[in-house]
Amino acid sequence: MKQDTKHKIIEAGARIIHLKGYYHTGIQEVLDAAGVPKGSFYFYFKSKDDFGLQVIDFFNSMYLGMVDPIAKNKALPPLKRIEKIFDYFIDLFQGLNYTCGCPIGNLSQEMGDLSQAFGSKLAASVDDMAQIYKHLLDQAKEEKEISQGLNTQETAEFIVSSWHGSLMKMKISKSIAPLKLHKQFILDILTVGNHSLVSGPVSDQSNE
Amino acid sequence: MKQDTKHKIIEAGARIIHLKGYYHTGIQEVLDAAGVPKGSFYFYFKSKDDFGLQVIDFFNSMYLGMVDPIAKNKALPPLKRIEKIFDYFIDLFQGLNYTCGCPIGNLSQEMGDLSQAFGSKLAASVDDMAQIYKHLLDQAKEEKEISQGLNTQETAEFIVSSWHGSLMKMKISKSIAPLKLHKQFILDILTVGNHSLVSGPVSDQSNE
Repeated sequence: MKQDTKHKIIEAGARIIHLKGYYHTGIQEVLDAAGVPKGSFYFYFKSKDDFGLQVIDFFNSMYLGMVDPIAKNKALPPLKRIEKIFDYFIDLFQGLNYTCGCPIGNLSQEMGDLSQAFGSKLAASVDDMAQIYKHLLDQAKEEKEISQGLNTQETAEFIVSSWHGSLMKMKISKSIAPLKLHKQFILDILTVGNHSLVSGPVSDQSNE
Repeated sequence: MKQDTKHKIIEAGARIIHLKGYYHTGIQEVLDAAGVPKGSFYFYFKSKDDFGLQVIDFFNSMYLGMVDPIAKNKALPPLKRIEKIFDYFIDLFQGLNYTCGCPIGNLSQEMGDLSQAFGSKLAASVDDMAQIYKHLLDQAKEEKEISQGLNTQETAEFIVSSWHGSLMKMKISKSIAPLKLHKQFILDILTVGNHSLVSGPVSDQSNE
């Protein structure tokens, strides 16, 4: 029962934060939307930030719930599964009239510089997203769909970054074109051979 | 004299908005930082949004001021100039300890869904960025540095989107690696031939 109420608050908060951002979301507004009595917030959460961090976990689970069935669909070759993930979200954002974007990406932009606790949790969540792609790319390698030399970790990270940037462009251009462009470029990177991308990992120490 | 004061307010506002975001920036805070007397804000600006829109123009000019000398440096081949632009910002963000990111990108994330006036102005600013790359890519084509079939408009747009997403990742991972990964992947896309990217423009009408 307690867990039900807590979940209701998190779910309502996630919806509002997705639309308006974290700072712009008031606790009272969340409680109203959840239909939960005033004053019960601090029974469930230590602080607004405690609540916000749990909303990130919720977003993470929501994302995995959407992507996992596609990523694990062994009826399709791995590369096709990656394409299906892109298509799934292209359809989703068309339905949302090119609004909202990725809640994890939004919070990264909003909170990345302002809170270390948020930054670390968001980075872990973005890493989780990349791991799904890495796993699919590793399988695509095994099935000889892509170059054996492709650095799957770096490529997976680039896919997620490029996706987040494309969502940003979608929001201001109110067009699905940036997401389709992302799909086109990423699939191109994966299917064109002879990449220089097979070299070692990018160093964090110098830009040479 | 009047223009000086107005410029001081915009400059101070830009700094604070870059760090904290638009909604989080108070007018009084901006006036204090600019060293301008209380109450003079509405002498120069119709509203906070009027001020915010002028700050976007300021960011746009600042960006062009940074990039133009590199983009127009005819001593370097066009592809090398693109690489130098990436390196310029990699150095810049290393100096900023991986904070701040692109103010236009930040505002796109924050305001894209909330204000049509902001959305349109930000989209125009992002298009301006893409035009710099398109122009360099067109020159690279002329000088036979890149594939004659590359769609320079789409590639330029993808470069800007991917860059914004990489900045987002930089902020939460507090690492320059995402920007280097962007550089590596984009230069790879540009220098590897036989791309499927030479096909027609991405349609906005369907995701087929």
